[in-house]
Amino acid sequence: MMNKKKFIAVIGGSECSLQEAELAEKVGCELARQGAVLVCGGLGGIMAAACKGASSEGGVTIGILPGGNRQAANPYVQIPIVTNLGEARNVVVVKSAEAVIAIGGGYGTLSEIGHALRNGLPVVGLNTWSLSRNDQSDNSIILAQDPAEAVKKAIGSIKNE
Amino acid sequence: MMNKKKFIAVIGGSECSLQEAELAEKVGCELARQGAVLVCGGLGGIMAAACKGASSEGGVTIGILPGGNRQAANPYVQIPIVTNLGEARNVVVVKSAEAVIAIGGGYGTLSEIGHALRNGLPVVGLNTWSLSRNDQSDNSIILAQDPAEAVKKAIGSIKNE
Amino acid sequence: MMNKKKFIAVIGGSECSLQEAELAEKVGCELARQGAVLVCGGLGGIMAAACKGASSEGGVTIGILPGGNRQAANPYVQIPIVTNLGEARNVVVVKSAEAVIAIGGGYGTLSEIGHALRNGLPVVGLNTWSLSRNDQSDNSIILAQDPAEAVKKAIGSIKNE
Amino acid sequence: MMNKKKFIAVIGGSECSLQEAELAEKVGCELARQGAVLVCGGLGGIMAAACKGASSEGGVTIGILPGGNRQAANPYVQIPIVTNLGEARNVVVVKSAEAVIAIGGGYGTLSEIGHALRNGLPVVGLNTWSLSRNDQSDNSIILAQDPAEAVKKAIGSIKNE
Repeated sequence: MMNKKKFIAVIGGSECSLQEAELAEKVGCELARQGAVLVCGGLGGIMAAACKGASSEGGVTIGILPGGNRQAANPYVQIPIVTNLGEARNVVVVKSAEAVIAIGGGYGTLSEIGHALRNGLPVVGLNTWSLSRNDQSDNSIILAQDPAEAVKKAIGSIKNE
Repeated sequence: MMNKKKFIAVIGGSECSLQEAELAEKVGCELARQGAVLVCGGLGGIMAAACKGASSEGGVTIGILPGGNRQAANPYVQIPIVTNLGEARNVVVVKSAEAVIAIGGGYGTLSEIGHALRNGLPVVGLNTWSLSRNDQSDNSIILAQDPAEAVKKAIGSIKNE
Repeated sequence: MMNKKKFIAVIGGSECSLQEAELAEKVGCELARQGAVLVCGGLGGIMAAACKGASSEGGVTIGILPGGNRQAANPYVQIPIVTNLGEARNVVVVKSAEAVIAIGGGYGTLSEIGHALRNGLPVVGLNTWSLSRNDQSDNSIILAQDPAEAVKKAIGSIKNE
Repeated sequence: MMNKKKFIAVIGGSECSLQEAELAEKVGCELARQGAVLVCGGLGGIMAAACKGASSEGGVTIGILPGGNRQAANPYVQIPIVTNLGEARNVVVVKSAEAVIAIGGGYGTLSEIGHALRNGLPVVGLNTWSLSRNDQSDNSIILAQDPAEAVKKAIGSIKNE
């Protein structure tokens, strides 16, 4: 049954560097190889690259869209969820996953990292934000050196319920 | 590609009569046979019966949950979307579909019918609400006599974009 | 303290007839005279007319906007709440009130009536939807003949907690 | 008219240290003295302290609640907005304000900072998160040394439209 599969969110900007897109595509490939379902925000940049990777390996891709039009999904999204909630859809992306992989990213990604950590979800980071408070580092984001390590750590960190 | 498939929402109460559950299960079966993806609110009653039917015919089932816990999905949901938005998830159910089939239903279903008609989505009804305003009937809900007719009318009414 | 005041939602279309606008303005006036706070969707039509009436009598007006821009509020909204949630804001309008007055209205209003009844909130109707299911009338909407009666019934129907 | 007033959000944890509560209360006092309307999440901790301060100086306080019950608002909230949206209400808190003051805070506050910066809103920080990406500091959060400076910088940073 598909709901025994692991659901992993890949978060990152709708615009990104070529290097970040390459990382995202490899993450998507590796998620599919490991049998995980990819959850993302459904648009371009990191999201499209991850969906492209997952699709190329026969994986399932879910795109939780901020707008009201299913046509806005990138072409590698198989399951478009049309929310029309704007950025509030970031919460839905995060809560629909069992672990999160953050790649690069701007302030929208930062908001998703905040929501994920607030919910106790594991967050694995590739070239993403570092956090500190009152001059003390917050080490909640699990660092990964490459896409394979990111996927391995994300799947390995999921709590069984 | 899966995003060329038709996405049809089945809406109805989380509690329902045996007769309504039977209608919902047959609607789910027929949707799967026609290659449509089933979107619903992911809980029990009409939603579970429709998912059961669709699953039994090898169809894909999406459950857009009101709460914050993926475990609340009925056992036939393959793709749980965890919103924690409460009833505001009703809007997401409707907007993620290209047509809606309403079966029986209480006031939550009524709200979904309102959102669907507001968005210009076709709504097919089986034993559901009738609407009138200022003593004039509103005939926007497309009536169906049985599950097969409901599915046929729902798929047939989708506008191609 | 303001939170001992009654919060009443006025729902109705962003476009309406002159006669409906007059009803809404009178409802707004009467709500303010009774010391109630007006909650609405913050846009034009019924919403603007009700806010105009309430403001003219020194009442407080809250507009819960669907878009992302506070400038979209009608000029009589004193407290704009900017949701960018699209129609999902209808749920927030209803849940922020202790009773609802529906005037005229299209399908968006119908969705709000559904959400209100689903939440057990009293709904008073002036020239609005009538509901039936399986040829049986649903009499949950409390009918009123004029604005003063609508306000009286709305305030009188609020359950004390 | 109240909608010419400035709307400023105060964000921070529902649990906080005594020192942080004192900062928040002083921020609330100062906002009210400057004629600004306080927007917050409506619960305890930083939110209650800020509302207490604003109320003590005759200011207006808005609490945008995550749950479905208006009784959950802290006693200093005058305008409770009942969303039942869970954490997605964080977006509504931020978007309903013209500038944000972050005090201390956990991951929920981090998510709000992300949403605010994403929307181009000024964010003033008192003892709150520091951000960096790829070993480069992100200096978007405007630092303040005390409550009066925080309020001055927040009001001063609002763009006139």
